[in-house]
Amino acid sequence: MSMEVFLENGRGILLAYDQGLEHGPTDLNERNVDPASIMGLAVSGRFNGVVFQKGLAERYYDGGVPLILKVNGKTNLVKGEPLARQNCSVKRAHEIGAKGVGYTIYVGSAHESIMFEEFGRIQEEAHKLGMAAIAWIYPRGEAIKNDTAPEIVAYAARTGLELGADAVKIKYTGDVQSFRWAVKSAGKARVFMSGGPKAPSEVDFLTQVRGVLDAGAAGLAVGRNVWQNSDPSRMARVLRRLVIEDRSVEEAVKI
Amino acid sequence: MSMEVFLENGRGILLAYDQGLEHGPTDLNERNVDPASIMGLAVSGRFNGVVFQKGLAERYYDGGVPLILKVNGKTNLVKGEPLARQNCSVKRAHEIGAKGVGYTIYVGSAHESIMFEEFGRIQEEAHKLGMAAIAWIYPRGEAIKNDTAPEIVAYAARTGLELGADAVKIKYTGDVQSFRWAVKSAGKARVFMSGGPKAPSEVDFLTQVRGVLDAGAAGLAVGRNVWQNSDPSRMARVLRRLVIEDRSVEEAVKI
Amino acid sequence: MSMEVFLENGRGILLAYDQGLEHGPTDLNERNVDPASIMGLAVSGRFNGVVFQKGLAERYYDGGVPLILKVNGKTNLVKGEPLARQNCSVKRAHEIGAKGVGYTIYVGSAHESIMFEEFGRIQEEAHKLGMAAIAWIYPRGEAIKNDTAPEIVAYAARTGLELGADAVKIKYTGDVQSFRWAVKSAGKARVFMSGGPKAPSEVDFLTQVRGVLDAGAAGLAVGRNVWQNSDPSRMARVLRRLVIEDRSVEEAVKI
Amino acid sequence: MSMEVFLENGRGILLAYDQGLEHGPTDLNERNVDPASIMGLAVSGRFNGVVFQKGLAERYYDGGVPLILKVNGKTNLVKGEPLARQNCSVKRAHEIGAKGVGYTIYVGSAHESIMFEEFGRIQEEAHKLGMAAIAWIYPRGEAIKNDTAPEIVAYAARTGLELGADAVKIKYTGDVQSFRWAVKSAGKARVFMSGGPKAPSEVDFLTQVRGVLDAGAAGLAVGRNVWQNSDPSRMARVLRRLVIEDRSVEEAVKI
Amino acid sequence: MSMEVFLENGRGILLAYDQGLEHGPTDLNERNVDPASIMGLAVSGRFNGVVFQKGLAERYYDGGVPLILKVNGKTNLVKGEPLARQNCSVKRAHEIGAKGVGYTIYVGSAHESIMFEEFGRIQEEAHKLGMAAIAWIYPRGEAIKNDTAPEIVAYAARTGLELGADAVKIKYTGDVQSFRWAVKSAGKARVFMSGGPKAPSEVDFLTQVRGVLDAGAAGLAVGRNVWQNSDPSRMARVLRRLVIEDRSVEEAVKI
Repeated sequence: MSMEVFLENGRGILLAYDQGLEHGPTDLNERNVDPASIMGLAVSGRFNGVVFQKGLAERYYDGGVPLILKVNGKTNLVKGEPLARQNCSVKRAHEIGAKGVGYTIYVGSAHESIMFEEFGRIQEEAHKLGMAAIAWIYPRGEAIKNDTAPEIVAYAARTGLELGADAVKIKYTGDVQSFRWAVKSAGKARVFMSGGPKAPSEVDFLTQVRGVLDAGAAGLAVGRNVWQNSDPSRMARVLRRLVIEDRSVEEAVKI
Repeated sequence: MSMEVFLENGRGILLAYDQGLEHGPTDLNERNVDPASIMGLAVSGRFNGVVFQKGLAERYYDGGVPLILKVNGKTNLVKGEPLARQNCSVKRAHEIGAKGVGYTIYVGSAHESIMFEEFGRIQEEAHKLGMAAIAWIYPRGEAIKNDTAPEIVAYAARTGLELGADAVKIKYTGDVQSFRWAVKSAGKARVFMSGGPKAPSEVDFLTQVRGVLDAGAAGLAVGRNVWQNSDPSRMARVLRRLVIEDRSVEEAVKI
Repeated sequence: MSMEVFLENGRGILLAYDQGLEHGPTDLNERNVDPASIMGLAVSGRFNGVVFQKGLAERYYDGGVPLILKVNGKTNLVKGEPLARQNCSVKRAHEIGAKGVGYTIYVGSAHESIMFEEFGRIQEEAHKLGMAAIAWIYPRGEAIKNDTAPEIVAYAARTGLELGADAVKIKYTGDVQSFRWAVKSAGKARVFMSGGPKAPSEVDFLTQVRGVLDAGAAGLAVGRNVWQNSDPSRMARVLRRLVIEDRSVEEAVKI
Repeated sequence: MSMEVFLENGRGILLAYDQGLEHGPTDLNERNVDPASIMGLAVSGRFNGVVFQKGLAERYYDGGVPLILKVNGKTNLVKGEPLARQNCSVKRAHEIGAKGVGYTIYVGSAHESIMFEEFGRIQEEAHKLGMAAIAWIYPRGEAIKNDTAPEIVAYAARTGLELGADAVKIKYTGDVQSFRWAVKSAGKARVFMSGGPKAPSEVDFLTQVRGVLDAGAAGLAVGRNVWQNSDPSRMARVLRRLVIEDRSVEEAVKI
Repeated sequence: MSMEVFLENGRGILLAYDQGLEHGPTDLNERNVDPASIMGLAVSGRFNGVVFQKGLAERYYDGGVPLILKVNGKTNLVKGEPLARQNCSVKRAHEIGAKGVGYTIYVGSAHESIMFEEFGRIQEEAHKLGMAAIAWIYPRGEAIKNDTAPEIVAYAARTGLELGADAVKIKYTGDVQSFRWAVKSAGKARVFMSGGPKAPSEVDFLTQVRGVLDAGAAGLAVGRNVWQNSDPSRMARVLRRLVIEDRSVEEAVKI
């Protein structure tokens, strides 16, 4: 039930903004480097949730849309088997007003078991406080050759379900049929597509999203494909038409 | 005493369904990918218990048969010396209604001591709450050449007894005589055969189970050999006749 | 708000004196090896704060200026991926009278996640006690080729903001324009330049500081460029004129 | 004082039965694989104590002789620097009725410091509950060439004394004189010889034990040389005559 | 203030006896292998303190002189980067009657940060109970070429001060001038020379001690150069004359 706050017609568009920690400010420009601009966009664009790390949430979150507090993260400066430990307590996330906590699990990493353990604890604490526990599941590490291969994406989705995530954020496989399998593998856990880097064209991106929805997913967590867009507000409206109003790509872009 | 709830005539058939985490959805098909179908099968097939990870138990367990909550697990994407840390608290397992907790110990792994320590703590907590502590004991790691060698299987069984497991889940050695030694080595800990991958033929599989029973084991934990079967319900009935009613393979299949 | 105590006109000059642990006494001379001389200088030079490790704070801090207690540190004798764990509790820092705690995070280190976790906990404890949490963010480790490259410095600044630091101490990039981007990346977290080793000339150093201020930073944390100066008191006055009174380098040195 | 319960005339013979975990059931036969047979032998053979892991103690210990609960252990399947972490709480050992806890320390292992830390804590907890803390001290790891070299055995003994063990279990050096030095090095900590694998002949074994006693030790912890004997009861009686009644080997065997 | 109990005229001679754990009994002989002989010597020789590990303190300490309980240690059997974890709680040290706790920090070791963290916690606990926290600071590990080089010894001394040690035990540099710098670097932390292995001659050793005192140190922690001496009592008296009565080597030896 804890995901309901992030959904509208069973669908949701989450505005992700943890790229500053994960990739550095190279993802950002003079406008969107300011978290206040993103908070504003989340509200004006009627997103179903916004994703911040603790530092941003404490200083820029204004309650305008539900908050998912990302409680772990890492820089992309570190090499080797990936590991991101918890950097914000669930209790603190709750005090800040979060309705959900986000946690990245690098399945396939040599440190996978540490993240399974942390997520297990975090999920229990979050549920006790009435918050959703959302898993960013990224297959990574020496053993992973292709992190969008259908069987790998489905495995990621399933891992989230098995560990008790209310929702999983996973990459798109590239076609509806194989992603439908990933959605099935996720069972009652809601599936959100990971927006990823800016797509070559808007239509390319929207077609991916449409495929994700047709496969049965709840929506997407999107960052760069919105706030790197030349007109983020328009893109927000297009996405609402596509995702929440369940229109075709062709209809969605007619605004 | 805590194992009694999982036994009938001193025997038990546990329906295992943690393959989604351990191997990924490649083990699953359109029907059995849905945990609800497994929960249904557990009840209709009159299994003596069902094995779920926390995420499945929280969303699909309906109390129809006793629950064993598997409190650790890993993906098979990770390479190197195996380690699976606890991802569900014993307290949470109890709240969900579990009558037992399951924990995998990779004996022989370079991380063996971490799992001994975690299992030691989990066993004490489980017993305080009146739950059974069941050890999945898998010899694994660089030092293990053949994990079904009789002396290795007997060692696995004994490890479970020494660490205080109420029951051990181990692989079959392939013949009654050597497995009898494993069962003796397990002492008062109940022995369950690990069902393993789908056997080449039904008779092959049932003959293994018969051997396990003749060797003195309590039963088996079975997944793929039931729910990958073309008629899981029939297979469940066959297994009951074999294990609970203690019939021969020939008699058991006559239904 | 917790940084206000360290600011004057929104600017601050912090006297850093943790070099004894970080680099050893080779940075020190017969006069400044004595922490009492630094405590005296902090007061007479009207610094906005002084930075000590616990051992110095317990024995030499006299309350004359606000204290930042550095709660981790390492020697430069250790090779390999850098890691500095917490060596002073936040509670003890508070008892000693600190208004802020400092913690070094080596972003890019293989141990980054340990420091993210510790800083996350320390920040929450500090805020509960009304103290500021200040992050010394140093890109370091095998993956870092140039720790003053603009994109690396901006990443360091952003990391501090995302993790909830009230202020970040980072290195200067060498030019105003690129450092302005780092300051923007830090958002509402105050930026302090890391003073670094003694500059070739006083004007060189002051020009750096001026650039830092012009880029929008709050000030600097300075050690060697003050107390290794032949006239530390005069240097303190020059810095005040430059930083707090916001004068040009030419005006600042006219005393 | 806490060792007194295990002593008779200042001497003691402990029946060790943790080989099932340490070496696997290959040490065992059809009769002695059953822990009940060992519990019976401990009582009928009038041993001064019996050594079990938690799992055996919980199911087979009947209170007939004082119990030493071994609270750590490892399989011999693991390669590399040895480490055995605590798998039973001291509190649980006490509930089961143990009068002492046993803990193996692999001195010389790269993980030595972990075991020193665990034993330190365990010793304090045991003493608070009135139980003895007995250290199995085994020099092991890459650095150890010969674990029965006199200086190595004496070092093992001394380590136990320094860490606060009430008694140490160490290997025999092979001659009285050098073992006397090990006993001296152990100071007020009681010394028990580690029985080791079955000796080539009974007289060989008894001569070793006689040497150990002549060197000043309190006795021995013996397993395989008793329960692998063709007549364990007779061997128990022989050992009593030798150790408790302090007779010569020649006299002891005359029964 | 907490060091006062170990000082007389601002000077102190501590009788160190942790060599049994650090080096093994090879440092000991038939007489001094007995901790009781050392306890006796500590009293008769009027030492200002005696240094024991927990095991010795619990069984041999008689309250005759103030006790420093060494709460970590390692054997010299372990190779690789040195690490010694806490093996005795501060609370237990206090119960035994210690007036100070000792802890070895291997600066430069790859595990340095673990020891900084442990010492930080121990120091705070010790001070709360009114005990001194004394750091044995030994530069060690791959990066350290010469652990008596003046800049390394001064760095060791400074590390102790920065971390909050009440006193540091460090090696002599070999000359007064460079050791004076180490003493200055230690600030208000008292400096004790580490006695080290038995010197070639008594005069050599006493000349070192005189140099240490002339450099401003508080005294020394001495073991082998006293209890390996042919007449330990006389050596104790000589040291008192040298250290406490502040005489020259020539005068000190005239007894």
